[in-house]
Amino acid sequence: MPISGFPEWLPAQRIIEQRVIDRIRSTFELYGFAPLETRSVEPLETLLSKGETSKEVYLLHRLQAEDGAVGQDDQLGLHFDLTVPFARYVVENAGKLVFPFRRYQIQKVWRGERPQEGRYREFLQADIDVVNRDILPFHYDTEMPLVIGDALAGLPIPAARIQVNNRKVCEGFYRGLGLSDTDQVLRTVDKLDKIGPARVAEQLVGTAGASEAQAAACLDLAAISAEDASFVDAVRKLGVTDPLLDEGLEELVRVVETAREHAPGLVVAELKIARGLDYYTGTVYETQLRGYERFGSVCSGGRYDNLASSGKDRFPGVGISIGVSRMLGVLFGQQALSVSRSVPTCVLVALPNEEQRAACDRIAAALRRRGIPAEVAPTAAKFGKQIQYADRRGIPYVWFPGDQDEVKDIRSGAQEPASADSWAPPAEDLHPVVTGA
Amino acid sequence: MPISGFPEWLPAQRIIEQRVIDRIRSTFELYGFAPLETRSVEPLETLLSKGETSKEVYLLHRLQAEDGAVGQDDQLGLHFDLTVPFARYVVENAGKLVFPFRRYQIQKVWRGERPQEGRYREFLQADIDVVNRDILPFHYDTEMPLVIGDALAGLPIPAARIQVNNRKVCEGFYRGLGLSDTDQVLRTVDKLDKIGPARVAEQLVGTAGASEAQAAACLDLAAISAEDASFVDAVRKLGVTDPLLDEGLEELVRVVETAREHAPGLVVAELKIARGLDYYTGTVYETQLRGYERFGSVCSGGRYDNLASSGKDRFPGVGISIGVSRMLGVLFGQQALSVSRSVPTCVLVALPNEEQRAACDRIAAALRRRGIPAEVAPTAAKFGKQIQYADRRGIPYVWFPGDQDEVKDIRSGAQEPASADSWAPPAEDLHPVVTGA
Repeated sequence: MPISGFPEWLPAQRIIEQRVIDRIRSTFELYGFAPLETRSVEPLETLLSKGETSKEVYLLHRLQAEDGAVGQDDQLGLHFDLTVPFARYVVENAGKLVFPFRRYQIQKVWRGERPQEGRYREFLQADIDVVNRDILPFHYDTEMPLVIGDALAGLPIPAARIQVNNRKVCEGFYRGLGLSDTDQVLRTVDKLDKIGPARVAEQLVGTAGASEAQAAACLDLAAISAEDASFVDAVRKLGVTDPLLDEGLEELVRVVETAREHAPGLVVAELKIARGLDYYTGTVYETQLRGYERFGSVCSGGRYDNLASSGKDRFPGVGISIGVSRMLGVLFGQQALSVSRSVPTCVLVALPNEEQRAACDRIAAALRRRGIPAEVAPTAAKFGKQIQYADRRGIPYVWFPGDQDEVKDIRSGAQEPASADSWAPPAEDLHPVVTGA
Repeated sequence: MPISGFPEWLPAQRIIEQRVIDRIRSTFELYGFAPLETRSVEPLETLLSKGETSKEVYLLHRLQAEDGAVGQDDQLGLHFDLTVPFARYVVENAGKLVFPFRRYQIQKVWRGERPQEGRYREFLQADIDVVNRDILPFHYDTEMPLVIGDALAGLPIPAARIQVNNRKVCEGFYRGLGLSDTDQVLRTVDKLDKIGPARVAEQLVGTAGASEAQAAACLDLAAISAEDASFVDAVRKLGVTDPLLDEGLEELVRVVETAREHAPGLVVAELKIARGLDYYTGTVYETQLRGYERFGSVCSGGRYDNLASSGKDRFPGVGISIGVSRMLGVLFGQQALSVSRSVPTCVLVALPNEEQRAACDRIAAALRRRGIPAEVAPTAAKFGKQIQYADRRGIPYVWFPGDQDEVKDIRSGAQEPASADSWAPPAEDLHPVVTGA
């Protein structure tokens, strides 16, 4: 009954996911990004106007649509990312927004992949973007990796390593090298991790009009990697010059050096990074978790100067997107995350008999008023069975009403007198705790 | 460019929505409901097997599906509520869940309404349900309104009034009255608010086989309303007897009396409430906001004993669902909610010149480390323009770096020396504050 590509988590996994989302969201808000949601659907023409993912769209049809009638509905598709809808939203609401506009957006997206590929067809993304009118200052490109680094550093997961490149470096280099179809070169180099350098060289010669020497130079560029500005010298040594290359190198240096100052070890210039989608025009980001490099990028994005425009108005932007479902799917698959309990409940109020349910409800209400998650036992079963109810869910405390109420830590067995108006658990027991492997 | 039925909020409205969701969610967790999400799609047969909404389903088609190929995709539709998917999830994962299972679920749902009706076709629901194996104790029916009352009472919105009825009361009464097609009677009485008593009586005679006296008795029952158990006497006075009626009255008394004890004024027995969907078998709930009764129910649900089953296993449940988009749409439409600012940012760090950006970033980082949302000004414009940046977003504080940093409350103009390692705003300024009309 599971449907291929539409993952569903068990309750404990969902608690972990919720905690991860909470951490991401609170970090985004600490940096001043405003929450935003867009509708799940876009007109098909909006979806098809941007790059290569057009083939993966789900279209909607009303079940009861009149036979053969082609109405507005026939043009609607589920969004496949959050950037294209955001660009549309900005243009549509430009008169009501204040720029530069910083927003985060945490929503499901859908891709109509063929079922047999085993890829996600529904998944959660967590995006931040900054968009401005006319010109967006470059320093926002340097801010994106810092926000992501901060968000992920607060989670019990392997350290993130953000790989950065700049399209201007690649395009300028290819142009300076004498290659004119720079898009085709980029697309081919993008396959490096999949097909290896020999076949990339072969395809550069075969489909992008490169000589063998030019192909070799492209591979030399792609091999460059550094955690500081030293990559500039490595590029210069390849002997190619071009104004766009200069501009790209200068931008890339700023991203790497800013990260080095504020978050050492987080960012690396990796000149093979290209990103498949067409709409990026400068900085591009990919992110791997250390030890999980083989699972690919969990957080990607870049600068897009031409995604949103309306008449003579342009709205350049830069953004980055955490693939929450993808990241958790990988970590769950490796048993790399666990949680202390499968329910929010901190205290189970035991029920001596059904006549005392109202009194027990009042105890639970008193605990809740002070922020302590509590529930009352489902039935007045023997206390042993009620303790088992708590134990099976990982609820740490059972409350026994009486002339003098008592509360028991069922992990240690310690039991002590307590009042619902004043007792509090240790802070670490209040909510489920997520831990790494 | 807006698409009829697919609402999108502006940033300030989205902040309000997020606050409302946060309040609802934290209340649900205080009562021990575990977070859960289900995939957005279900097989069409799952969607069509439950009641009357089958006509409102959106089906998915892959844009690039092979022409004429009818694969698994052709059978998938977007869910129209969260109860049917939850029932399916419970059956599918029964072996991995512990019962009774309490979960909340806050997700978008879709209904393929015809565009011209002006109804939402995509909207957010916030559900709680309790499901058990075999038998679900009745006290969970009494808990649902208390949780909702608690969640909504913490919001700056008009007071909620939860109307409760019980299908057994209606069915037992109709049966005791000698009417056999009780479903048809229920569906007809359900139209009372739309078409009025005269036409309901007419239709009861015309389509449900009622005599005029029977129709009048049905209307008498529907007219009964009370905030305490006194409705039982009112029903008894109608002179109808039936064992199912007795059972229903006893259950309804328990819901009303429990609410009277724990949340006086919240719940009213309203014997005209029917709920259109077929799957309810006992208690039913609807909720109105005082002063907004004309906009209909913002929170509905009920007991369903037969929704989920697998072979010989039965999973009876009871649940209630807050129509978040519907409620906010009404309140936004009446300008009944506002928020103190349109961004999370509490402090804008002013930028004296671009050379000091790294130093300003460090100030912002120090504030964030202590939970204070901060951002650095986009450019080193004149300070007046930077203050305007804050003012247009409602950001209350601007930070001026210097030999001695200073922070200015731009609402009062008060400015004082401050250190990023120790200064904190008053608690009410830390996050945007939502207020009612």
